[in-house]
Amino acid sequence: MKDLAENILLGDKRAISKGISLVENEEKYSSELLKKIYPFTGKAYRIGITGPPGAGKSTITNCLIKLLFDKGYKIGVIAVDPTSPFSGGALLGDRVRMSESGLLKDVYIRSMATRGSLGGLCKNVIEACDVLDASGKDFILIETVGVGQSELDIAQTADTTIVVLVPESGDSVQAMKAGLMEIADIFVMNKSDRDGADLIVSTLINILHLKAPSENKPDIKVLKTIGTKNEGIEELLIEILSQKTYLENTGLLKTLRKEHLKRKILDLVNNKLHTTFWNDENRAILFKSIDLISEKKIDPWTFSEEITKK
Amino acid sequence: MKDLAENILLGDKRAISKGISLVENEEKYSSELLKKIYPFTGKAYRIGITGPPGAGKSTITNCLIKLLFDKGYKIGVIAVDPTSPFSGGALLGDRVRMSESGLLKDVYIRSMATRGSLGGLCKNVIEACDVLDASGKDFILIETVGVGQSELDIAQTADTTIVVLVPESGDSVQAMKAGLMEIADIFVMNKSDRDGADLIVSTLINILHLKAPSENKPDIKVLKTIGTKNEGIEELLIEILSQKTYLENTGLLKTLRKEHLKRKILDLVNNKLHTTFWNDENRAILFKSIDLISEKKIDPWTFSEEITKK
Repeated sequence: MKDLAENILLGDKRAISKGISLVENEEKYSSELLKKIYPFTGKAYRIGITGPPGAGKSTITNCLIKLLFDKGYKIGVIAVDPTSPFSGGALLGDRVRMSESGLLKDVYIRSMATRGSLGGLCKNVIEACDVLDASGKDFILIETVGVGQSELDIAQTADTTIVVLVPESGDSVQAMKAGLMEIADIFVMNKSDRDGADLIVSTLINILHLKAPSENKPDIKVLKTIGTKNEGIEELLIEILSQKTYLENTGLLKTLRKEHLKRKILDLVNNKLHTTFWNDENRAILFKSIDLISEKKIDPWTFSEEITKK
Repeated sequence: MKDLAENILLGDKRAISKGISLVENEEKYSSELLKKIYPFTGKAYRIGITGPPGAGKSTITNCLIKLLFDKGYKIGVIAVDPTSPFSGGALLGDRVRMSESGLLKDVYIRSMATRGSLGGLCKNVIEACDVLDASGKDFILIETVGVGQSELDIAQTADTTIVVLVPESGDSVQAMKAGLMEIADIFVMNKSDRDGADLIVSTLINILHLKAPSENKPDIKVLKTIGTKNEGIEELLIEILSQKTYLENTGLLKTLRKEHLKRKILDLVNNKLHTTFWNDENRAILFKSIDLISEKKIDPWTFSEEITKK
């Protein structure tokens, strides 16, 4: 364990893989590792990339990786694969495209499966980012399909969140769900040479105008890209870096990360309270009582008071 | 208190108002009242009506009230007003229109303000429904703007959830957010004589076809209405009643309500655990420690373990 943490700090690829597997499988020693590497986290800038299926998130991630690599940065990538429990996963096409950059030195790419059919970012993704962060990466890209809970989870660790949309109405309509509207720092209209792109871009800009500007965040930008032609990616990176500089210079990055930290601690504590409370005994009590409560023989308030009093 | 519960059970309007005010303001005696009336709940059928602002939810609610009233049913209505802390509220136009039916005998209409700018159904709305339920209503309509968390909250108490949409792209795009897709039992395309209505209806039907049918729910229907002309409301009510009969005959209503009950109890217990835990002392500890944790002098895992161990 001591060696593992040390080797992660040295940026050893094999150690990074082992560390992520450790936190991914929630093994007994994972919090031990996380405690050890925690002092060395916080240097990497975390970029979340989300959006509906087929929006071209992987392509854009790939382009960003190459661009960041060309500038000499060290990059870690967590690609959350919503469908497959197998490494490599069902989205093989995407992964193959990504492995093109995966071969580069100083780029670490890892697929993680989500639990539950709706996809979403599992909690451990944040901890996998901690591993990459401690290993000395400058940028961490977290790519995930925006469905269910994931967009909120991604916002809980990303310094900048990019929402990728496409002109196809079915997709973008799906993507416009409030969750995505709330968390985006940058909207990217990908495949922007297709019909309807400009209409969605202007609708987006209109909706954003209705929102009060946040004092704690840079202004939300809407950019156009054509991922497959590598068009607009340079502009996207410029905007990311400009938001990064803004957050750093104003001290807002520190504030933002303190908020993330507070959420993380509340989650850890609440999880601990729930798992401690909902042990076999109390679960059996609820299971046995639910029919009685349903038949109005006990009421939910009395039941809750009694079960928490014990 | 004893008198209040008794008078609520008798259907006394003044007692109902007082009871709802009690649970709305979370007064000391509210759980005492809720315990008393709980055995008499479960008879009313709860219909949630949600959708984006301006979709015509109030108009449709009004039409449904009249139709149900004509059939001799007793009706309770909770209209969640997202903007105003004043009774009557900022959506005065809507409320005025609703008061037309509010004057009818056996119809009880109540506006409740939400807390927090994002609107959403506050927890106490469910408890206000319990008061109406115990008072002998046959149907309870819960009308709320679908923003933020409200659509999930409404699904947590409604037996049937109606999502109202309109053809205007800005609105319907807003409304299509995943939350609404997940909870709708019936989609209503209101103002269906306007341009684009048919396109959205067919898009919706397409998206619904992609979803696996649920074994625990009737098939999701998409209906068209023109609320201001009272068109399509009869068909809407027929669909509601047909879903009700289906749920009752298959025993699924019981299962659904047991699920709602379980969620309610988990919420009550978790709330109790959190409020008990996050007392002044522990909050002060977190507040004092967050800088130390942020500066990596303590790690979040050790902190959470230590604070929960005490």
